[in-house]
Amino acid sequence: MNAAEVLRRIGEERPLVHHITNYVTVNLVANVTLSTGALPVMAHAREEVEEMASLASALVLNIGTLDPAQIEAMLLAGKRANERGIPVVLDPVGAGATTLRTRTAERLLSELEVFAVCGNAGEVATLAGLSAEVRGVESLSGDAREAAEKAASAFDVTVAATGKTDFVSGGGRTFAVENGHPLMGSVVGSGCASTAVVGCFAAVGYEGGDAETVADALAYFGLAGEVAAEGIPERAGGPGTFEPRLLDALAVLAAAPERLGGGIRARELTRGG
Amino acid sequence: MNAAEVLRRIGEERPLVHHITNYVTVNLVANVTLSTGALPVMAHAREEVEEMASLASALVLNIGTLDPAQIEAMLLAGKRANERGIPVVLDPVGAGATTLRTRTAERLLSELEVFAVCGNAGEVATLAGLSAEVRGVESLSGDAREAAEKAASAFDVTVAATGKTDFVSGGGRTFAVENGHPLMGSVVGSGCASTAVVGCFAAVGYEGGDAETVADALAYFGLAGEVAAEGIPERAGGPGTFEPRLLDALAVLAAAPERLGGGIRARELTRGG
Amino acid sequence: MNAAEVLRRIGEERPLVHHITNYVTVNLVANVTLSTGALPVMAHAREEVEEMASLASALVLNIGTLDPAQIEAMLLAGKRANERGIPVVLDPVGAGATTLRTRTAERLLSELEVFAVCGNAGEVATLAGLSAEVRGVESLSGDAREAAEKAASAFDVTVAATGKTDFVSGGGRTFAVENGHPLMGSVVGSGCASTAVVGCFAAVGYEGGDAETVADALAYFGLAGEVAAEGIPERAGGPGTFEPRLLDALAVLAAAPERLGGGIRARELTRGG
Repeated sequence: MNAAEVLRRIGEERPLVHHITNYVTVNLVANVTLSTGALPVMAHAREEVEEMASLASALVLNIGTLDPAQIEAMLLAGKRANERGIPVVLDPVGAGATTLRTRTAERLLSELEVFAVCGNAGEVATLAGLSAEVRGVESLSGDAREAAEKAASAFDVTVAATGKTDFVSGGGRTFAVENGHPLMGSVVGSGCASTAVVGCFAAVGYEGGDAETVADALAYFGLAGEVAAEGIPERAGGPGTFEPRLLDALAVLAAAPERLGGGIRARELTRGG
Repeated sequence: MNAAEVLRRIGEERPLVHHITNYVTVNLVANVTLSTGALPVMAHAREEVEEMASLASALVLNIGTLDPAQIEAMLLAGKRANERGIPVVLDPVGAGATTLRTRTAERLLSELEVFAVCGNAGEVATLAGLSAEVRGVESLSGDAREAAEKAASAFDVTVAATGKTDFVSGGGRTFAVENGHPLMGSVVGSGCASTAVVGCFAAVGYEGGDAETVADALAYFGLAGEVAAEGIPERAGGPGTFEPRLLDALAVLAAAPERLGGGIRARELTRGG
Repeated sequence: MNAAEVLRRIGEERPLVHHITNYVTVNLVANVTLSTGALPVMAHAREEVEEMASLASALVLNIGTLDPAQIEAMLLAGKRANERGIPVVLDPVGAGATTLRTRTAERLLSELEVFAVCGNAGEVATLAGLSAEVRGVESLSGDAREAAEKAASAFDVTVAATGKTDFVSGGGRTFAVENGHPLMGSVVGSGCASTAVVGCFAAVGYEGGDAETVADALAYFGLAGEVAAEGIPERAGGPGTFEPRLLDALAVLAAAPERLGGGIRARELTRGG
């Protein structure tokens, strides 16, 4: 399936996407999920996460505001998701910044079968054992392609390292996604939001291969960012008015996937290319 | 009092509405409360919920992201609210999806005296013991009128089942509210937001009867949705830009309730009608 | 440094500002921090707050949705911040409303060395031992200047009491800030947002004196509010569309501080003046 076909299927199936996520960007994540055509649900209590994961078509784990109770909930929900064979997507927010985050990302990767890891270049480089500069939850440097490829090999999982160009590596293939707009970096949670879209895409199957599905999801998200930025005057616009327009653009494209047209700029890289 | 009179009184009294609510839509709920003219406060710690409920004119309990500590806080605050005679409004978010949510909604209804229950058709049908399809926190089917009437009888409480048409039943009367706009369903938390408005209306008294007050609150909320949708081009608009406009519309109508004019479309149904 | 110089330095240094804050306005606080040019990070777990505070250039403590675990985290992070000599900014949200909030604000002030306290007039009056009316988290009365000066003396700390005019007192000096717009009061979290801006300003140093730095931060924030309100029709606009425009305005002014021009209306008051 290409991105338009995936979006069409999401709109038909309306899959439930269960998020265990941070309280900073949770509203954006929920709205992005809904705008993409899926149904979001947030549930974090040990007492219900397994039951909720049993109803879901995908599980998204985002460690942006972590604590021990949430880690336990992520493991419970993740194991249930694995038993059921639904995809688990991990956003290792802030890995590299604190020990708790780095170790938790590693622990989730070791105890769960993960469909894809989506982080920024610094977070992914940390997981890959490369040097990286992470300031809080912001990546300040790092070779995103190398990070994605090394982490994908090390953990035998599909890995996306997002940035100006997103790189997605898995199953021996690497994709580069050129869609996006600088204003996306001015909104808190655009990384969390792109991971949510990956969760929606994963929820309806991924016949093209995991890395290609992730790349398509990121390309759709980036293209929505391009659409959202259109018409924002450079001097007047900014992060505030861009965010609602991004939701609009996601919804408009999801409702009429044929509009993706030739806008998707995800391409497979040749080895060493 | 009709809706305009209630809004006028809210603007004069500026009642404090205490919310114990989920972390997904909490910001929207707070802004909706403020835009309606009341003062929102969120407080969830066992150590302060009773004191906060003692200062409030209404208590809104929303189980959208439940855990055991929150259940305890809801019971403590609810009992204090009952002692003081201030109204308690319950939004049973996700009842029917997980056991924790269904049981908690039932427990709150059994241990507290509740002014009104406001949920979507699936959640209310679950409480009424009818079959329903709830996917996460989204209702996919169910006869809203039957659900509202059965739940109102079963629990002897006013019940609103929201949907394309909202039905409110209580005290042997049933109202249908036709206000609203499809874009409201595209925003995460529009249900939570409508419950918050019910809390604001309840906070200043309800001489017309509970069911009528709830119906008026939902009609005002739905009318604001209609106003907000005006001028959003069908192909360009969406959930993102609609949400801020909804807050604007609530504030504009609350500040000048005479503008409600003939816009309120809440009517009492005759039995079997 | 004047406000423009501080903003320029923030943009160059991109300081990390660690927030331990409430879940109601946390997204706004993060976006305000990012729009001002700094990097926000939210982390609240006992297991990582010290490590995160070790990476940060300022720590902002906001007690808007308090519970015992958060108090412990604030003390741990605050002590680490004090050891490192980075500024700690406290927003005593709801002090005066409940005992938990009042006592916690006092405890944080007694156990930590605080750079500045930023609250509304009622909260600050409560801390100063003056009579005040606080309804939930809203201040309904109180002499902001007297409150700021008394609290500054009592705790030997710089104190801002925000309102129509903001008053900032510390080190024997008092400043009045006249920037701002009434629409700011219609958005939940504008107080939290202004405190976040103070955190950003504090993060890059404060050679002009603490009170002057705080006054400059509040003036920049208020001026952004004025810019954001431009062009919102009085009858149509409201809290919803104002909030994204406020983020835009903060970002536009931060990216080009020369535009502050003569817009800053912060002035030192003479004693008794």
